[in-house]
Amino acid sequence: MKYADDSFMLHTDLYQINMVQAYWQDGVQQRKAVFELYFRKLPFGNGYAVFAGLKKVIDFINNFRFSQSDIQYLREEGKYPEDFLQYLQELKFTGSIKGMKEGELVFANEPILRIEAPLAEAQLIETPLLNIVNYQTLIATKASRIKQVTGEDIVMEFGTRRAHEFDAAIWGTRAAYIGGFSATSNVRAGKLFGIPVSGTHAHAMIQTYRDEYTAFKKYAAAHKDCVFLVDTYDTLRSGVPNAIRVAKELGDQINFVGIRLDSGDLAYLSKEARKMLDEAGFTEAKIMASNDLDEYTIMHLKSQGARIDAWGIGTKLITAYDQAALGGVYKLVSIEDERGEMVDTIKISANPEKVTTPGRKRVYRIINNENGHAEGDYIALDEENIEQEERLKMFHPIHTYISKFVTNFSAKELHESIVEKGKVIYEEPTLQEIQAYAKENLRLLWCEYKRTMNPEEYPVDLSQACWDNKMASIQTIKEKISQGNSRR
Amino acid sequence: MKYADDSFMLHTDLYQINMVQAYWQDGVQQRKAVFELYFRKLPFGNGYAVFAGLKKVIDFINNFRFSQSDIQYLREEGKYPEDFLQYLQELKFTGSIKGMKEGELVFANEPILRIEAPLAEAQLIETPLLNIVNYQTLIATKASRIKQVTGEDIVMEFGTRRAHEFDAAIWGTRAAYIGGFSATSNVRAGKLFGIPVSGTHAHAMIQTYRDEYTAFKKYAAAHKDCVFLVDTYDTLRSGVPNAIRVAKELGDQINFVGIRLDSGDLAYLSKEARKMLDEAGFTEAKIMASNDLDEYTIMHLKSQGARIDAWGIGTKLITAYDQAALGGVYKLVSIEDERGEMVDTIKISANPEKVTTPGRKRVYRIINNENGHAEGDYIALDEENIEQEERLKMFHPIHTYISKFVTNFSAKELHESIVEKGKVIYEEPTLQEIQAYAKENLRLLWCEYKRTMNPEEYPVDLSQACWDNKMASIQTIKEKISQGNSRR
Repeated sequence: MKYADDSFMLHTDLYQINMVQAYWQDGVQQRKAVFELYFRKLPFGNGYAVFAGLKKVIDFINNFRFSQSDIQYLREEGKYPEDFLQYLQELKFTGSIKGMKEGELVFANEPILRIEAPLAEAQLIETPLLNIVNYQTLIATKASRIKQVTGEDIVMEFGTRRAHEFDAAIWGTRAAYIGGFSATSNVRAGKLFGIPVSGTHAHAMIQTYRDEYTAFKKYAAAHKDCVFLVDTYDTLRSGVPNAIRVAKELGDQINFVGIRLDSGDLAYLSKEARKMLDEAGFTEAKIMASNDLDEYTIMHLKSQGARIDAWGIGTKLITAYDQAALGGVYKLVSIEDERGEMVDTIKISANPEKVTTPGRKRVYRIINNENGHAEGDYIALDEENIEQEERLKMFHPIHTYISKFVTNFSAKELHESIVEKGKVIYEEPTLQEIQAYAKENLRLLWCEYKRTMNPEEYPVDLSQACWDNKMASIQTIKEKISQGNSRR
Repeated sequence: MKYADDSFMLHTDLYQINMVQAYWQDGVQQRKAVFELYFRKLPFGNGYAVFAGLKKVIDFINNFRFSQSDIQYLREEGKYPEDFLQYLQELKFTGSIKGMKEGELVFANEPILRIEAPLAEAQLIETPLLNIVNYQTLIATKASRIKQVTGEDIVMEFGTRRAHEFDAAIWGTRAAYIGGFSATSNVRAGKLFGIPVSGTHAHAMIQTYRDEYTAFKKYAAAHKDCVFLVDTYDTLRSGVPNAIRVAKELGDQINFVGIRLDSGDLAYLSKEARKMLDEAGFTEAKIMASNDLDEYTIMHLKSQGARIDAWGIGTKLITAYDQAALGGVYKLVSIEDERGEMVDTIKISANPEKVTTPGRKRVYRIINNENGHAEGDYIALDEENIEQEERLKMFHPIHTYISKFVTNFSAKELHESIVEKGKVIYEEPTLQEIQAYAKENLRLLWCEYKRTMNPEEYPVDLSQACWDNKMASIQTIKEKISQGNSRR
C-alpha cells in the first residue's frame, strides 16, 4: 500500500466517525457505554456455533491508534474541525472487554463480547470487531459441522484459492483448525499460527512431464513422503496403476502415504482404487479425496461405503458457501445519562427478533451435576448472583410457558476478562489448546443438539430479572411513542 | 503479526513449494511454462463477468521475494535441503504476464491472465493470483448485476461488518466500485483507493440520547449534511415525524439530505414516508434504504413502486451471498521440453467441462462494424493473425454445428502487456477510469446478454486451429492411456 504508517483505525464505517464527532461536539464522548456483540440466528441450521476471532480482536485493540496518514486523510475530506482531528489523534482505548474464550460454544442472542468503554471508543471498534467475529465464528462453526460427519478421519483445509482475499484464507484456516481440522495447505498460516501444513503436487506436475509415471518418480526423488494425484488423465486406467508401479519400484526408498482423488465419482473411484492398492499389497496406503466437498457430500459418500481416509476441503468451507455470512450485531445496552447514572437502552423493531435485550449481562452455562451435560444457557443481569441459587427457573424468552426448574447444577460463567481499562490482561492459550477446548465443550452437549440437520433447539433463557427489565423498557418506549403520536 | 519481515510469498499452497523443490532437484525449474488463468462458468447465472484484481496482482508481483522469516520457517519444517532454501531466497520473478484490464467484461473459458515464466516462478504465484482474481471478479460482477437493476440510482457498499475479514472488505468494495457502485462506508477504502465514503449515524446514537428528536438535533449540530435514520423505535409514528420536525426547526442551518430506512417493509414504508416528506414540503429529500438488499429484492421493491432513491447494499454483495465463490483455475497450457521446444499440454477429465484447451492463446472481442455491438469472443492460438482475416468462421466449441460467418468486423485483442521479464510495465488507470471502462464495455453488449435472469449465452468460440490442436491432444493422450492399459 502507499502509506508506510497505515493503520486499521479507518477500517470502520464512516458513520462511526460521524457519530463520534457529534458526541465530541456535544461533550458526551466520554460517557460510559455498554455494548454487546451477539448474533440472532445460528448459521447453517446448526445447533451451536463455535466462537473464533478473539486473537485478532486483541491484536486490533493493541494497535488502537490513529496514524498520521489516517488523520491526514480525514483532514483532506474537509468535513472535520481541526480540534476534533487532534482529539482523534490522541485517542487511546481505555475501556474494558469481557468475552468468551475462542473455542467456546455459543448460541443465538447471547453476548459473545461485552464492551464497556467511553462512548466514542466503544463506537469506533464496532465495525472491525464485527468484521472479525462474524467471519471467524462462521468458519469455525462450519468446520465443526464437517467434523461431526467425518469423525476421526483426517480433515484438511485446502481453500486459499477460493477464499475471499488474503485475510480470509489465513484467519479462516485458523478458525477451521479451532473447529477441529488437522491441517492447512496455506504455508503462511503454518508460519503465523503453527498449523500443520499439508500438500504434495498438482496436475501441472504431471502435465510438465506429460507422463504420470515420470512425474511420480520425479516427485519421489525429492520427497520421502509421497501422495500421488491420480486423476490427471484417467484415474483407474492410468493414475492408480502408475502410482502402484512407482511405489513398487521404489519400495523402501519412499514412504508411499497413498493417493489423492480430485474429480470423478469419489465413491466408485475410491472403492476401486482401494481394491487395486490392496491387491498390490499396499493395504496401508491411504486414499485422500477433494473436489467441492462439504458435510453433505461427505455424509453421502460415507453412506455409500466410499473408502476415503482423509478429506481435503476447499471452497465450501472457506467461503461458508451455503451461508456466507453470520449476522452478528453490536448493540448498545446501557449508557451513562446526563446525571452520571447508567440507564439501560433498547432498540424496538417491527421484526420481533431484532428487539434488543437491555442491560449489562452475564452468560452462564448450566451444567447438570448428575449427568455432566449442559441443561442450557442462562443470561442474567450483571448484578444478579446466580451461583448462589439452589433452584433455577429456566423459561423460553419468547414462548414463556416452556419452562423447567433446575436443581443440583453448576453455573459456569462464560465471560473472561480480556481487556481492563485499555490493557489486554487475557493470556491467550495456544491454538492447540483452543482446538482441544472446543472439542471438550462439545462433549457437554447432548447429541440431539449436534445433529447437522434439524437439531433440537438448545435452551438460551433470560433470568426473570432480565426478562422483566426488557418488558419494562418496551413498555416505556411504547408509551413515549403513543404520547408523541397524540401530540402530532 | 509476530514477524516484522513477513511477506506474502508463503501465501500459497504447500504443494507449490513441494513441486518447485522436485523441479529444482530435477533441474527443470527454469523451463519455460505458459499458464492461463480462467473460470469455467459465469457466476450468479449472469451473462458476463467483470474482471477485477489486477491492481493487487501487480502489488504481489512487485513484492515477489521470500523474506528471511519465510525461509527460516521452511528451514524449521525440516524437509527442505539448505541449497534449495538458498535458491528460494534468491528467487526473483523474471516472467511475463499478459492479461485483461480491470473492468473488462470476461466470459467462461477465456484466459484472463496468461503467465509465461520459468516453471518454478509460474507455479509459486498460482495460489495468490487465484485468491485475488476469484474474489475480486466475483464482487465486481455481483455489483454490476445490482447496477443493472438500479439503473441511475445511487448505490453504496455498506458490507464491511459481514465481509470475510479485513481484506475482503476493502478489496471487495473496490471491486464493487469497478462494477458501478458510487460510494463505500469503509473509510480505509476511501483512504487507500479514493472511493467516495458515505454514512451518517446508527441506531446507537438514538439510544444514546434515548430520544430521536434530541439525537437528530445533536447530529445536526455537528454535520451540515443530514440523513436521519428513522427506524429505531417506530418508522412512521416516531422516526419520520421527528426527522421532519428537526428539518423544519433547523431550516437552512442544515442540508436535509433525507432519511434512511433500515428495517420493516421497505416498499410500504418508503411510499408512506415519501407522502409525509412531500406534505411537509421536503419534496427534494431523498429516501435511502438498506437491510439485506440484493438485485432480486430491489427489482421486487421497484416493481411495487417503492419510493427509494438510494440503496445501501451490505451482506449480499460483499459476500456474494447467493454464490460465494468463483471457480477460477490456473492451468498449464504449454511447457518447454527436454529438447528446448515448447509443447502444448492438456488435462483430461471425466467431467468434460474440466478438459483444458492446450496452447498459448489470445482472446479477441469481435465487434460488428455496422451496429457497434459485440458478435462474440474468439480465442485463437498466439501465432494466428486474425486481425488480417476478412471473414471469420465462429463456431460453438462443444456444439460445433452452431456456427456463423462474420464479415465487416473489428477484432479487439483483450490482452495487454502487464509484466515483461519480471518488470511491471503496465500503467494502471485510475479507479474512476476503470469504472468508466467497465460501463463503456457494457454498451457493446446486446441487452439479451445483460438480463439478470436467464440471459442469452454470449458466444466464446475457438479458432479452427485452436480446436484442432485440442482434439489432437485429446487423441494423443487417449492412445497413450490405452497403450499403457494393454501393457498392464
